[in-house]
This record gives sequence, C-alpha cells and structure tokens, in this order.
Amino acid sequence: MAGSTFGNIIKVTTWGESHGKALGVVIDGFPAGLRLCEGDIQLYLDRRKPGQSKFTTSRAEGDKVSILSGVFEGVTTGTPISLMVENKDQHSKDYGNIATAFRPGHADYGYIEKYGLRDYRGGGRSSGRETIGRVAAGAVCAKLLQELGVTVCAYTKSIGDVKIYDFDLSERDNNSLCMPDPTAAKKAEEYLEACMLNNDSAGGVIECLISGVPAGIGDPVFDKLDARLSQALVSIGSVKGVEIGDGFAASKTMGSINNDKFRMENGEVVKLSNHSGGILGGISDGDDIIVRCAIKPTPSISQSQQTVNENHEEIDIEIHGRHDPVIVPRAVVVVEAMCAITICDAMLGHMTDRVDYIKEFYKN
Amino acid sequence: MAGSTFGNIIKVTTWGESHGKALGVVIDGFPAGLRLCEGDIQLYLDRRKPGQSKFTTSRAEGDKVSILSGVFEGVTTGTPISLMVENKDQHSKDYGNIATAFRPGHADYGYIEKYGLRDYRGGGRSSGRETIGRVAAGAVCAKLLQELGVTVCAYTKSIGDVKIYDFDLSERDNNSLCMPDPTAAKKAEEYLEACMLNNDSAGGVIECLISGVPAGIGDPVFDKLDARLSQALVSIGSVKGVEIGDGFAASKTMGSINNDKFRMENGEVVKLSNHSGGILGGISDGDDIIVRCAIKPTPSISQSQQTVNENHEEIDIEIHGRHDPVIVPRAVVVVEAMCAITICDAMLGHMTDRVDYIKEFYKN
Amino acid sequence: MAGSTFGNIIKVTTWGESHGKALGVVIDGFPAGLRLCEGDIQLYLDRRKPGQSKFTTSRAEGDKVSILSGVFEGVTTGTPISLMVENKDQHSKDYGNIATAFRPGHADYGYIEKYGLRDYRGGGRSSGRETIGRVAAGAVCAKLLQELGVTVCAYTKSIGDVKIYDFDLSERDNNSLCMPDPTAAKKAEEYLEACMLNNDSAGGVIECLISGVPAGIGDPVFDKLDARLSQALVSIGSVKGVEIGDGFAASKTMGSINNDKFRMENGEVVKLSNHSGGILGGISDGDDIIVRCAIKPTPSISQSQQTVNENHEEIDIEIHGRHDPVIVPRAVVVVEAMCAITICDAMLGHMTDRVDYIKEFYKN
Amino acid sequence: MAGSTFGNIIKVTTWGESHGKALGVVIDGFPAGLRLCEGDIQLYLDRRKPGQSKFTTSRAEGDKVSILSGVFEGVTTGTPISLMVENKDQHSKDYGNIATAFRPGHADYGYIEKYGLRDYRGGGRSSGRETIGRVAAGAVCAKLLQELGVTVCAYTKSIGDVKIYDFDLSERDNNSLCMPDPTAAKKAEEYLEACMLNNDSAGGVIECLISGVPAGIGDPVFDKLDARLSQALVSIGSVKGVEIGDGFAASKTMGSINNDKFRMENGEVVKLSNHSGGILGGISDGDDIIVRCAIKPTPSISQSQQTVNENHEEIDIEIHGRHDPVIVPRAVVVVEAMCAITICDAMLGHMTDRVDYIKEFYKN
Repeated sequence: MAGSTFGNIIKVTTWGESHGKALGVVIDGFPAGLRLCEGDIQLYLDRRKPGQSKFTTSRAEGDKVSILSGVFEGVTTGTPISLMVENKDQHSKDYGNIATAFRPGHADYGYIEKYGLRDYRGGGRSSGRETIGRVAAGAVCAKLLQELGVTVCAYTKSIGDVKIYDFDLSERDNNSLCMPDPTAAKKAEEYLEACMLNNDSAGGVIECLISGVPAGIGDPVFDKLDARLSQALVSIGSVKGVEIGDGFAASKTMGSINNDKFRMENGEVVKLSNHSGGILGGISDGDDIIVRCAIKPTPSISQSQQTVNENHEEIDIEIHGRHDPVIVPRAVVVVEAMCAITICDAMLGHMTDRVDYIKEFYKN
Repeated sequence: MAGSTFGNIIKVTTWGESHGKALGVVIDGFPAGLRLCEGDIQLYLDRRKPGQSKFTTSRAEGDKVSILSGVFEGVTTGTPISLMVENKDQHSKDYGNIATAFRPGHADYGYIEKYGLRDYRGGGRSSGRETIGRVAAGAVCAKLLQELGVTVCAYTKSIGDVKIYDFDLSERDNNSLCMPDPTAAKKAEEYLEACMLNNDSAGGVIECLISGVPAGIGDPVFDKLDARLSQALVSIGSVKGVEIGDGFAASKTMGSINNDKFRMENGEVVKLSNHSGGILGGISDGDDIIVRCAIKPTPSISQSQQTVNENHEEIDIEIHGRHDPVIVPRAVVVVEAMCAITICDAMLGHMTDRVDYIKEFYKN
Repeated sequence: MAGSTFGNIIKVTTWGESHGKALGVVIDGFPAGLRLCEGDIQLYLDRRKPGQSKFTTSRAEGDKVSILSGVFEGVTTGTPISLMVENKDQHSKDYGNIATAFRPGHADYGYIEKYGLRDYRGGGRSSGRETIGRVAAGAVCAKLLQELGVTVCAYTKSIGDVKIYDFDLSERDNNSLCMPDPTAAKKAEEYLEACMLNNDSAGGVIECLISGVPAGIGDPVFDKLDARLSQALVSIGSVKGVEIGDGFAASKTMGSINNDKFRMENGEVVKLSNHSGGILGGISDGDDIIVRCAIKPTPSISQSQQTVNENHEEIDIEIHGRHDPVIVPRAVVVVEAMCAITICDAMLGHMTDRVDYIKEFYKN
Repeated sequence: MAGSTFGNIIKVTTWGESHGKALGVVIDGFPAGLRLCEGDIQLYLDRRKPGQSKFTTSRAEGDKVSILSGVFEGVTTGTPISLMVENKDQHSKDYGNIATAFRPGHADYGYIEKYGLRDYRGGGRSSGRETIGRVAAGAVCAKLLQELGVTVCAYTKSIGDVKIYDFDLSERDNNSLCMPDPTAAKKAEEYLEACMLNNDSAGGVIECLISGVPAGIGDPVFDKLDARLSQALVSIGSVKGVEIGDGFAASKTMGSINNDKFRMENGEVVKLSNHSGGILGGISDGDDIIVRCAIKPTPSISQSQQTVNENHEEIDIEIHGRHDPVIVPRAVVVVEAMCAITICDAMLGHMTDRVDYIKEFYKN
C-alpha cells in the first residue's frame, strides 16, 4: 500500500527511483510566505552528494533541484511545493547477475516477494537516492524552523567503534566524516581505510541536536514527539536503532539519577541535567532534543558473497561499482532533514492545542 | 492536535485518563468474521495488571473489559470494535503538592506548557493506564495473527544491568519479571530489592520475537515495517530507544559479517543468519522479526527530589503511594500488543500490493 | 476497511450499533480549555430524540450521554473526549424474516456482500442511531464555534413537495417538522398524514445556514470546504444529494447573473448577492455558507414489498414497528452537527496557513 | 493546511499552478503489475484539452505527459507513480488590473484572505489546469478498473436548460458538447451561441455511469461510497451540487416508489429499479452507480463587472482572453477521472473486509 508520505500538517511525499527519469518530493500543507529559492535547497542536497572524499562514491551526481510549483516571486504560496532532481545517468547498462540476485543486506528479496517484480537498476526505490526528496523537504522545513529560532544539527557520533570524544561542533565540516572531533575523525579514517583494503564496509552512529524547541510540542499517545522522530529516523534506509537522550543506557541506571531535576533560572523553568533528551512523556520539555541512530555497514561490498537469485538458484556474487564504504557521512544531512520535517510538523500541530490560542487567532 | 490513533488499515484509537470514568479503545477497520469474546481480551489485560508480585504495585485494579460494539453473536462484524474498562477507583483524594508539582521524569511540565491545564490525578492521560486500550486492541490483533500462523512474543531481556543469558522461552511465565532465564530472573530480583531498599527504581530492556511473517510485508519508504514498529514502541511511555535485529551493535561491525547470506532450504529461500532482525529495506525478509526497546527507570520514587511547581516555585517532593519499582514486567504485554497491531496492519496492507492479487480477488 | 473517522485536525470517530450495548464517539484533537458538561451535549441529543410528535417514532429512547474522558473539572483537557450513550432496549426479540431479508431501500444486501454477516437488530451499524455519536460531537464543536462567533443552524426546507415559502427562523422550533414557516409546516403535516394513511413514507430537504465564518477557510483542492461539507452530509444515511448556494439551479443560469459582485461596505469586502453559498473555489468568501441536502423517504414501510433473503429466496415482507414516516425533522440536528464538525475542523486548519501566523504564535 | 491528497489505499496528490513550470500528480499505493505507458494517460488528457470546438478555448495547450517514476519496463512497480505535464506558456505578461482584482465568481478573494498572497497568473492553483493531475491519475485507475470489469463513463446531461432526452451513449463523442443525444446537442449549441453573443457564459450538468461494481463496496459511516464520490466531485472547481440516483427528486417521492425491489435473475440478486443509483447505506448494491453534478457558468466573462481589488478599491473589470463559454464538455473527463479514482480506491479497500479473505490470501 501507500507509505511514501510523512507528516500530519506538513505532508511530505517522496517519489522516484535510483535510475528513473527523476526523483522528487511534494510538500503539501507548507505555509505561505516563506522566502524560498532553489539555492536554499541545493545547499542541503550538496551535503548528501557523493564524491566529496575517498569514503564516498565518486559518481558524478549533479543533483540540481528545480522548484516546479508552490513558489511565486520567490515566496511560498501555501500550495504544494513540488521539487525535482533529474537523473542524468539513466542509460541502461548490463546489470549481469545483479539484476536477478538477492543482494545480501539489501531489500531485493523483500521487493520481489511484495510486488512480484522490481526495478533492479541501482536498487530502484530502495536506493539511497530516494533520500533526495527527504533532504529537499528537510531544507525547506529547516528554513522555516530557523525563523522560529530552532536549529537542527546532526553529526557523526561514531564510525565502527571509533567514537567522538571531545565534542566541538565547529569541527564537523572540517573533515570528510562529519565528526565534531578531529582526533576521532583521524582514527575513523584509519579504520575505514582498513575496511576498504579488505573490500569491506563499516557503519556508525549519527546524533542530532535540536535547539530552541519550546516545551509543549508533541502529542501524548501514538504521535509522541519521540515516537514520530523514531519513525522518521528508522525510515531512513540502513538505520537499525534509535535512541532519545540516554537511550539504552537509561535502562541500566536508576530513577534517582535518570530523573532530571527542574529548577528556575532567570524566571524560566530549566532542568539540571538532560537524561531525557528533551522529551518527557512524548512532549518536549524545553531542553535540547537529542536523538541518535545506528547505521549498519553498507551492504554492497566487493567481496564474494553467497546468495540466491529470483530463480531460486544458489549463486555467488561480487558487487562492484561505485559504493560508499560507509554511508554515515552522507546520511548526516538526511537525519537532519527528517528531524527538521518532524519538528516543524509538530510545532505547527501545537498551534491548535488550546481554545485560548484559537480565540486569540480569530478575535478580529 | 490529535495523535491517539495508530494504523493504516486497522485504526486503533485509545482514550481515557488514569482516574477518569473509564478507559478504552476503538478498533476501526478490523475485518469481519473473527470469533471474539471478552475472555480473549481479558487474558491480555490480566498480564498487565498490577499486584502480581512485590515488584508491581498492589493496587486492586480490576480492569474488566466490556465489548460495547463490533461483535455480534460472538463474531466481529467489520464495524468499529469499542472496548471499555471502567475505573473503579476514581474518588477524589488530596493530591497535595503533587497536583501542581512538575514531577521529575514525568510529562507534567510538558502538559502544562502544551495545554495550559492538566488532569493531575494519577498522571491523567500520560498514565501507564492509557496502555489498557493498546493491550486490548493488541489482544484482538494477536488473535487474528494466530489464525494466519503468526506469533508475537515479548519478554524481559534485561533489568538494570542483569541480562538474560540462557534463553528458554518456556521459563518466561515462571517468574514475576517475565525473564526467559530463571537464573537471570533471580539476579534481577536481587538487584530490584536493592533498588527498593534505597527508595529507588530500575529500568530494563524488552525484546519481542515475531514468527511466521512471510517475506514482503511492510512498505518501502516512511512506512517501513521497522519504522512503524519503532513508532509503535517508542510511543509507549518510558521507552527511550529501539533496536531492530543487531541494532546499535550493527554500527560497529562490517558488511561482510552483518549481511545475512541467502540460501535455499527445502525449496524455500532462507537466511544463514539473522543480523537484520527479519527486516531489510523496511520489508520483512521471511525470518523472525526481532525488536527491542529500552525502558527507563520508573520516574516516581519516594526519595526527596528537587523540582518546580506550576507557580514556578522551587520545591522538594517525595512521591509516595503505589508505584512499581520497575515497570518492565508489566510493559512486556504492551510491547507485544503494539507489535501485534503493527504487524497485523501491515499484513492487511500487503493484500492490495499487486494487480494479480486484485484480479484474483475480483475474478468472479 | 476503516471509515468511521472524520476530520483532519479534530478527528471524530463514531462507534456502536442500534441494539448493541452502547453507542458513542471519540473526539481526538479537540483543543483544551472549553467549558463542557453533559448538559451541553444532551441539548443536541434531545433534538434528535424520537417520540416528539406523531411523525417521529414513539420509542422511549432515553439517550443519556456520559462524558468518559477528556474533560477535567468541567473543562476540556486536549485529550480524547469519549462520549457514550447506553442502549437501554437491547433485549433480543424475534426478528422473524426481517433477520434474513434484504429490506428494500436498506443496506442489508450490501452489508452481507461486504462482510459476509451482519447485526440485523435494528439495522445494526447502518441504523439512524449511529448519528448519536455525530450529534454529540457536533454539539461539542458547535460550542467552540459559538465562542468564535460562528453559528450553525439547520431547518427543514421541504417535505415531499411542500416547500417553505416565508422564511422565519424563529418559527423553526414551534412545529414538529422544524420548518421555519408555519404555513408550510401545516401543509406538510397534511401531506404526511396522507402518507401515513397509505402506510407510506416521505422525504424532504434540509438546509443549513452557517454565519460568521471569515473569508479564507477551506483548502484549494480535494479538501475544498464544500467538498468536505458534501462528504459530511452525504455520509448521513438517506441523503441522496447536496447543494451549495444555488446548487443545481446554477447550472441553468448565466455567468453574468451567477457571479456575485464584490463591493465595499463599512470598510469590509462584501458581496451584493450570494449565489455562491459563501464558498468560492473551495474557500469561504466571508458570506453566509448555505448548503442543502435531499433526504429520501424512510425505506421502512408497512406496505407489503417484494424482496429476496439471504438464502436468495424471493419473499414478501411488511416492516412493522416503530418507524418515522419521515426522518427529516430528526435529521435536522444531524445536518447541523456534521456542518459544525466540518467548519470547526477547517477553521483550526487555517491557523497554520501562513508563516506570519506561525512567527506571531512563536514570537516569545 | 494540506488537502491536495485524495484516497485511502491509492493516494493521489496533485501539484502545480496554471502558469508555473509544470503540473503533475503522484499516485502512491498503486499496485504493481499493470501495463502502463504514456499513451494510456495521454488519451485521457487529450479529452480535457482546449481548442476542440468553438465552445472551448483555443489555447494551444500541448499537455504532453511524462511518467517520471513507478513504471519499469512498461509495468507499474508498486512505488509512487509520478506524472508531469510541463507548462509551455509560462512567459510573464501584463495582467493589468486582473493581478490585484477579486474576479467575481473566482477564488481570488478567498486565497488572499487565506494565504496573504497568491499566484494571480491564470488563477494559479485554483485554475482548471489543476485537473490535469486528476485526469492523469484517473486514467491510471480507469485502466485498472477495466481489468476488473468496471467501466466509468461520464457525459453531459444538460447545458443551461437544454437536457438530453433520447439517451444514446454512442453519440457522446460525435458532438463537441459530449452529449449522448444529437438533437439536444444541437439545441445546446444554439443556446451557447446566444450566450457568447451576449459575452456571457453557461453551466450544465454532468452525469457519470459506473458499471460492473459488485455489491459490497464502500464503507458504512463517513467513507460511504456516495460520500466519497460527493467529496470527489464537489472538489472539482465550479461544481455546486451532486446527486446519487434520483437525488433531489427522491425527496419528493414516497417510500413505496423509491424503494427498489430485490428479485432473483439467473441466480443473481437484482433490483427491479435503480432509484438508489447503485448505492444503499453507502455501500454498492450491485446495480449501475449513477452520480450527477451541477457545474456553474464559467465565471470569466468579458462583460464589465463590478468588483473590489486587493487595495479594497471598488473597480470595474472586463475579463478578456481565452475562456470557455462553458466548461462542461471539458469537465466530463474530469468527472470520469474522479469517479475512477474513488471506485478503484474503494474496491481495493474491500479486500481486507473479511477474515476469510485474509486467511485465503495467506493460506500458503
């Protein structure tokens, strides 16, 4: 069934396959009156572009975005914003046995069982290129959030077992792994080089820090703010886990430690710690929101692997071509985008939560 | 805004507060023709009842479910199934300073900022009693899944830092902590007793094993099967993290290890390992589905805690009364319920995925 | 599949069968802070009660509503409002051949083909009693609308071919047919008496006048305000048509007449006529919103009718018992309720339409 | 808020403005395995093209559709089908006072009040060109319906007060007004010529006949099949009313006449009449489904009209340029498209209505 739409107030629908004519996104329900140009979006798309270092594929993906609708004279109009990136490189080639093989770690087998057929070119819909639409929509939402004083910032927390240690956000863009710690980035590079020598791949953890969200955002039950963030993040291909605040570590501690104490500071309610990651009972508590997700190692590796094909024959495959040995650095902006969409949507949702808000709005 | 409904085909809407007249759930879109009686549901509700051991509160919650609609002569009719549990114990009492305090680790502050007011009795809507509706709906979905050969089984994986070691599912119901390992259960009890002596509380990890789901279930993008399961689990109060298959450990391994090899066995496609946890690219791969979630320590503790109240005064509170020192054992059935709802919904969603399915259905 | 929920921001879900234990509604997404008591809702439910005249059935339906959740200390809390009316009269009786017959003009045959079984008692889910939930939710929405200066008022426009002529809204509640014209009401009564003598039934037209809705409400494409109103009205059993403003008459006129001219009046944009019925391009134009719906004659009549039963045998049936010879007067409040829900939902939806609204809201 | 998406299982989202870069539609949830090429869709788009007679505008709208995603090797893949038509003629021109005037009968005023700004070029989002996306999606759904034995056929029922009399569907495409009655078409042409001489415009009624839908399709409450059809039709610009079966005429008749008698014929349940228009209680009754909608006269006329502009100045405007004196003939295919989408979606929705369907599906 459907499932390419995310959001309650702002509805983001992505479409497109890796090697089809184009990929894109429709953002419906986005408010009128935001200055928006293609450059605002391109900035984000460029961050997910490959070929920026030896750890990302060297494909020449231009990925130039066009705004097809929803913007008039440089301002959003309130009607659906349609964004498109044309695929430059869609000439058919010989996919050999990859066309019918179930690549280990990929969705090929599931797609065949689900749909009876599949677009095998570059993974089709399950390709990482699907995230182009997410990133484009995220750029738009992030621009609105900025006007509300909210910043969304993701970075690499670890690659393999190399974790960041000294956190310095200003360092994030100074290394090709998006790590806010140059020493860790150095070690992670060494780790990745060893992987590559071995024709193998690595995973990692991405963390996202969201600042400026007031308390009271999110809904009590199934649409808890962290539940929506979790869906948003796990819906990114290769994500195998998500944590809010202390995450799994919280399961090992005690209430007396894990409970963040409330105190007053300059007339504001503050917390003395942030084990909660900025969300309590599914609703923002005014503190920084901190979420993390685990990315598995890139499944496409050039080592020989045992598998099965569509004819149910046992075969061995080697997956050559342009594949990132680790997708973590390129997924950082995708995580940022999904968080921006989720937070933006929840903040709009809050505006109808109280009768006095509504009366104030309609008072004239 | 709204947010009390979950599901695409089967829509589950819970309602009710801890100390209101009643709590319940409406299940819309549930198919006609399932034999269903109150006993089927009560069985599940009894598993989340308190007072079953010294580690769960001793409140006398009867929690008798009534089927109010959607069942005729013992069979579901296809129309909304309305289930209700009346609150027996709703007499008002003196909540003292708890009525206006922002209890650390609770959603009180978020509710006030969101809604401007709140039902402070027993946590109101943010109470664990909200899960009554989820468990009731989960029981109904689990019964349908059983007819399709799917079983959903959750258990305690760890309490504090005590993990299960020898996995024996048949032991789960032989100890009050729902641990499928009697030795670990013993150690966990000791750990909890130490917590209680200290007026403190503990957390833990719950794992859910879902067997019998064919390959091809789930949707490619935002409604990936694991993304929906993640929303479902993180929407349970106190859950701070979720993992699918190897989860965060996958981020530290390599592609050559993490990729599950496909092979043929008795004419069926099988995998030689299950690092994926039964889901690849958001779609079931035919293997057991394995998800896990982290539960934080119960925030209500009787130690004195610093906090702030609605008048923004700094105060100290002690939360006395009947509170579980650990909610993990009672949350096991809630996890099972949410997984059952999610899987059942996704399996129904798959039925319209192919034109040949549709033509076969309408062929007469 | 599901289909018992209506609304985008305020989600109204009805449940219950004619002769089940109870009927009710869950209103999710309703804002916090509205004073609300059972009396507010009972007022509306009493208007749809039978037994108020010789033209409505004399069943003793008490239909006392209970608020089960979402209201604390007389004020809505922002969490789901669950409302229930218990069925007093659910003792089983002998339905004779009605239990298996496909009553002409009823949904019996469709239900059997759809679900394979049905609750035949009193029409089950397809009974007019399902509207109890709608009316209860409508009462809540109408109360909020009132605080925003919006009034929703429905009345009988015609019964059979007896139309109102001199419109005087103050007369609506002075006759049992809800006609705002006492002369027409008199004639309609005579018409109905002739029907009843003949063991026959009648239909009619209900009009709803909605005042105070500012311009700018509704959405451009599928959720046009009139499209949502049309779904809302046609979803009421027995409605076979709907009109906005001049409706079908507009198809016979010309642009020069049908176009309402805009002019200024006391600094406000006004229209010199209202052929549009207050909605242009799916968006309110600031004028009174006027919608109308056609109600078919009550299908249950005591004349002998040819039909077929579940065994596909041709039979004759006479439907005795308590049935309204015309449901129009009792449906008036249902029309009002559905309009109130739709307008209220659309007005909340408008609050996020502009970036400047959002910045103003979050400015602090 | 959002509102550009229609459908429960098949979700159709249109985007685009009259004079933007392009217009299009994303169809999510469409099943895999349908042969589909651009020609299938172009056939429908060509039917809504202008310039086909003197009663439709002579703009050279090429309106060539491209399939951007969701089709691989000529077959749908189950992933979102993205369809686009580029706007050839988007050069800016001088709109004069039209740019700021509230054209009578148009949505201009509503848009300004709603969004604070608007794309005034050609009506922007409120242009009839938005229906390109609907027609494209309708073509895809109609192709699937055809494989299920369902045909959807709309035609002009009346223009002004000229109604069809002798119904002969084979004549529909032999006149420029899509009237299945050549004599009526002749008279309607004369009527339109008189309108045009007067610089005026006309409306009309479109009827749609849907054959082959089995009994049991549609849902009992808010998503009644006729309620969804009503939303679908009234969401088309200029539609001011909708009828199912006898529609408003049903309000004047009696139960004994309006009730369709059920009988057996060749082992099948049939009805001896079809006053219901194929839908009873919101569920298809196996008979032809008949719906009708009223189209208002084209609001753009070249007569001088009084109105107001964005500066709230009273002005007179004449709307010159290429405008259909009647949009009815071009709207016929739009009506067909919306009905096809609605019926297709409802038929897919029915597949999960019964436990025995589900067990049969998953039996292997």
